[in-house]
Amino acid sequence: MKRMRIGIAGLGTVGGEVAKLLLTRSDELAARAGCELDLVAVSARDRKKPRRVDLARAVWHDDPVTLARAELDVVVELIGGEGGPAHALVEAALKSGKSVVTANKAMLATHGAALAALAEASGAALKFEAAAAGGIPIVKALRESLIAYGIVAVRGILNGTCNYILTEMEKTGRSFEAVLKEAQEKGYAEADPTLDVGGGDTAHKLALLSALAFGVAPDLAQMSVNGITGISAEDIGFAREFGYRIKLLGVARATARGIDQRVEPAMVKAGTPLADVEGAFNAVVADAGEAGPFFFEGRGAGEAPTASAVIADIVDIARGAVGPAFGRAAASLRPISPPPPDSRLSAFYLRFKVLDVPGVLAEIAGTLAQSGVSIESMIQRARNPGEPVSIVMITHECGETKLARALNVIARSDKVVAAPCMIPMEAG
Amino acid sequence: MKRMRIGIAGLGTVGGEVAKLLLTRSDELAARAGCELDLVAVSARDRKKPRRVDLARAVWHDDPVTLARAELDVVVELIGGEGGPAHALVEAALKSGKSVVTANKAMLATHGAALAALAEASGAALKFEAAAAGGIPIVKALRESLIAYGIVAVRGILNGTCNYILTEMEKTGRSFEAVLKEAQEKGYAEADPTLDVGGGDTAHKLALLSALAFGVAPDLAQMSVNGITGISAEDIGFAREFGYRIKLLGVARATARGIDQRVEPAMVKAGTPLADVEGAFNAVVADAGEAGPFFFEGRGAGEAPTASAVIADIVDIARGAVGPAFGRAAASLRPISPPPPDSRLSAFYLRFKVLDVPGVLAEIAGTLAQSGVSIESMIQRARNPGEPVSIVMITHECGETKLARALNVIARSDKVVAAPCMIPMEAG
Repeated sequence: MKRMRIGIAGLGTVGGEVAKLLLTRSDELAARAGCELDLVAVSARDRKKPRRVDLARAVWHDDPVTLARAELDVVVELIGGEGGPAHALVEAALKSGKSVVTANKAMLATHGAALAALAEASGAALKFEAAAAGGIPIVKALRESLIAYGIVAVRGILNGTCNYILTEMEKTGRSFEAVLKEAQEKGYAEADPTLDVGGGDTAHKLALLSALAFGVAPDLAQMSVNGITGISAEDIGFAREFGYRIKLLGVARATARGIDQRVEPAMVKAGTPLADVEGAFNAVVADAGEAGPFFFEGRGAGEAPTASAVIADIVDIARGAVGPAFGRAAASLRPISPPPPDSRLSAFYLRFKVLDVPGVLAEIAGTLAQSGVSIESMIQRARNPGEPVSIVMITHECGETKLARALNVIARSDKVVAAPCMIPMEAG
Repeated sequence: MKRMRIGIAGLGTVGGEVAKLLLTRSDELAARAGCELDLVAVSARDRKKPRRVDLARAVWHDDPVTLARAELDVVVELIGGEGGPAHALVEAALKSGKSVVTANKAMLATHGAALAALAEASGAALKFEAAAAGGIPIVKALRESLIAYGIVAVRGILNGTCNYILTEMEKTGRSFEAVLKEAQEKGYAEADPTLDVGGGDTAHKLALLSALAFGVAPDLAQMSVNGITGISAEDIGFAREFGYRIKLLGVARATARGIDQRVEPAMVKAGTPLADVEGAFNAVVADAGEAGPFFFEGRGAGEAPTASAVIADIVDIARGAVGPAFGRAAASLRPISPPPPDSRLSAFYLRFKVLDVPGVLAEIAGTLAQSGVSIESMIQRARNPGEPVSIVMITHECGETKLARALNVIARSDKVVAAPCMIPMEAG
């Protein structure tokens, strides 16, 4: 039987798990791969750290970048980070004709098209199933399966930490800050949660899904990104009253005027597939035109789901699948041309915090009407004399720019005590 | 640019759609495939029948089996049927080293392992994404993606007609017969619906998913198959009261004592992914051990979803993916060894139609208790004096064989007016 020589750079939870699978499931994986998967080299920061499997047979590299010059067929990059040693290693490996498997979404969202071109030039594979939605095989599905009719839109819950926080906020009624703190204590959220709760991690993953779906080069610059730090328990409660849930979505959509990419909290109708995704799970809806919507759900992070995706990529390469990284020649990946910023039409959830004085509703409704924004439904809470009161509404479809301008006018009213909250409604 | 020569056998709705896609989306598909996809030959029953695309450039074959001798790289078999010309064509094509793409679940469920061996021997590909769950890329996911930890169980809603009928029965309260008749009039169900409502179509698909998941040869003989013809509106109503939905599931499960494959109506808890699948949609839960459950949903039939799957297989072959049909060497596919028939443990829904006389509940409960079956919850309807009354219960987990014996005893009681109904509870 043939053998494929593998080197792993980065032996954290995922790297350690990939190594363990290669060593403990070698017969089954060889049957799937059609060849022995031989872990011959590893690199990590601390050689002395105890590992869960015996790596004595693998050659140790202090410098991960030297893996690119070792006698290897595949380099598994699990160091992470947009640039630095991860990028240097991947670049060097691909240049030397070694295939690369990586979970590094930050690197690919920024350097993806250039790395894909390097891989093509040397005949190497560049695979990244683990970089988006963890164990869910959405990269493969978009690259290889849902191609006949083209993709109209991809919508996903791509960050388990955010979905966990939003789910806990809904279940317990607690604030974002309180739930985040608990998640950090339990190890579900990072000490510095910015990349997760700020939407950046979702943006990295969306850039990859967008590239696969639409044949474009990944481009974070052409993306509007908002996180969940501004979501209040009150908004989650009102969402529920209206029959919605608030989810942090990554949405990429082919419109007549360009490819619209956005990461934002959105109101998703309860009972639709995305609305029902709970806790740390990830999910993606791929709207494949006439072939219909496809829905994928699974664990989006954690060592086992991520290692599962890495192993699938390794086996793919062993089976000779060295097609282009984004499903088509790197040179054919188009730049993303976003639609004009004022072209977005959507329905919105609005919340105003106002003084409980006569005429305030008339003033808000009047300003919205003047901007052509009409209201589909409204909730006004029972009055607490002397205290500010919330007025909540859902609009019919309207222009986002017009609505934002109207909200600016409303915010300046002396009856309005806080900046209005505005959350788009999105299909689930 | 290279080109791949394709012949299609069978120009029904799916075959016609595949031909249309190859001709009208040729640039996009060539970009994905890395070569021109050239439709050079077709075969169908009636040459004079008008087609939706101009097939004048393709060579017409009156006898589909002659496609196996034509100058082709890939034969697309969309004739259908377990044996006959479909099987003859596929066998001849694979023997001559031509790759085959097929949607033919009946053929593969019976001859799958033998055809996979033929393909391997000649170096041809045998691909069948369209044969299970239509456009959902579950064949690829099980063959290539969810392999690191092995699959513990696959559960699916694999027949859109049955799911449509059950959904309509639940929505309208009408009988199976009435909903089936309407579905036939609307063209949603075949004039002879046996293969769908009897569970045979689900069985064909489950045999393929089972083979992919567990590394076994597809084997319909080692499968218990029950359809939905015995499901009453009353049972669907009671299911709803208990918080369940009745779904026709195909379930394949690796147990300590063998691989358990069954097609049967099951009670699935409302709010779980499978319970919420409505209408003609298909869905699959793949339980991938430590990597967690994965859920896939999409259109399971119809020309566009099926053609989408066929095109994906064609592009795969163009990209050089000629790995073994079931994800591992045909010679390594093990025979299915099912668990002993009396080993099944499950909770069950039970419905008894009884005379409304004193002591009947005590008699039923007593017989169940003697067999070691304990009851989790029960509904007894308000009495209609003089008329038979339904007693409905959900058991705790118990041995199916013991329970069935107890039901036989109960059925012989002169207070029981109809055969008891017994539906297993299944995870969703």
